[in-house]
Amino acid sequence: MPNPTAAMLVIGDEILSGRTRDANMHHLAQEFTKAGIDLREVRVVADDRPAIVAALNALRAGHDVVVTSGGIGPTHDDITADCVAEAFGVGIDVRDDARALLSAHYGRQGMEVNAARLRMARIPDGATLIDNPVSVAPGFSIGNVHVMAGVPAVFQAMVASVVPTLTGGTPLLSQSLRIMRGEGDIAGPLGDLARAWPDLQIGSYPFQRDGVYGANVVIRGTDSAQLDAAMLQLSRLFPD
Amino acid sequence: MPNPTAAMLVIGDEILSGRTRDANMHHLAQEFTKAGIDLREVRVVADDRPAIVAALNALRAGHDVVVTSGGIGPTHDDITADCVAEAFGVGIDVRDDARALLSAHYGRQGMEVNAARLRMARIPDGATLIDNPVSVAPGFSIGNVHVMAGVPAVFQAMVASVVPTLTGGTPLLSQSLRIMRGEGDIAGPLGDLARAWPDLQIGSYPFQRDGVYGANVVIRGTDSAQLDAAMLQLSRLFPD
Repeated sequence: MPNPTAAMLVIGDEILSGRTRDANMHHLAQEFTKAGIDLREVRVVADDRPAIVAALNALRAGHDVVVTSGGIGPTHDDITADCVAEAFGVGIDVRDDARALLSAHYGRQGMEVNAARLRMARIPDGATLIDNPVSVAPGFSIGNVHVMAGVPAVFQAMVASVVPTLTGGTPLLSQSLRIMRGEGDIAGPLGDLARAWPDLQIGSYPFQRDGVYGANVVIRGTDSAQLDAAMLQLSRLFPD
Repeated sequence: MPNPTAAMLVIGDEILSGRTRDANMHHLAQEFTKAGIDLREVRVVADDRPAIVAALNALRAGHDVVVTSGGIGPTHDDITADCVAEAFGVGIDVRDDARALLSAHYGRQGMEVNAARLRMARIPDGATLIDNPVSVAPGFSIGNVHVMAGVPAVFQAMVASVVPTLTGGTPLLSQSLRIMRGEGDIAGPLGDLARAWPDLQIGSYPFQRDGVYGANVVIRGTDSAQLDAAMLQLSRLFPD
């Protein structure tokens, strides 16, 4: 059975303006690879309602799992929850269990749950909450979409609590060989190797340092015996 | 006149598997912001022909400018040029000017332009070449699509040569204020400020360090007088 496929939607003007460098995509890619979930596509869109709704609907129709990051805080530019409700065609309102989490948390600090903070308890109808051990305000899952915070520490905690609940596949294994020759010199034999192992993905990632050309060749697959055999052939093709 | 809009397509299994952390998106975002080109969307797709062609066609129809990164080297997994030709419905073949660049470069190093290297001279019909001062193999522009290498040093050089040829807009200016209060405390007044300045984008980016909550509030816009006035109001709302 093929591994489940996944997509990610990163929501935030700050990424697209170059102010912030996204860190969540790389983290999710690594976690999904370990879990045998095949991350096929990532989209980054601005804090723009039509763009978010359209991307959500395209991604949830095309993949088994969708994770979003960003836009679930208390400020006016946090519109993700409303966009998710619109994409699913469901209502959205403050929910008692989410409000209780916030009340307990802010109450312990002697702070009130004002109107802005209460926005973080607005959850689309039919969603289940995702625990936030870092700063309490929950994410949520609805259908195959998992809505998480953009702050990396919170995103990572939410990924850690959601991934074990997903049906994973066979973890993608990888091995790599660093070859100190230009890609143009290795491309022919490498192409033959790729054709000989149709179930493996063989990638070549060139680099240049101090005028010396090289490539990291990475072989990925789910069958460790195939992977070992292909790596052996690769190392024989290019004995340093 | 509104600024031109742009999209980016990042092509590469290595990003989606978590092996490599993409650096090109952040660079392009910063360069486009300086040039007054509004980066609206980024998509990351695997080395998969139907996925690349579909994303290319969606992005080039929806934006004034599209930049791609990755997949134009000599190895079997470099399929971007063929996908671009398919998306535009044009032919693709080795082109004399591109071949001449490669021959001169490799000739100087006493290396032959073998079949693999010649793949890098395959250019879709009607495209113009993008100079590669780092490793010679060119990128190309066709219609509103600019096809660049994935290796960051080469990508950055290609961006530097293409951006001045694009019709830019008014550069997006930004100012920011660090406020050492939780987002929930500032969200109300901040929303009022955003409503008072509809031509500005006001974003709030929370952080938490050593148990202390704060937010960087960023105001962006093209009119420096508006920006200054809004920043003054913001600093009066939250005098440290």
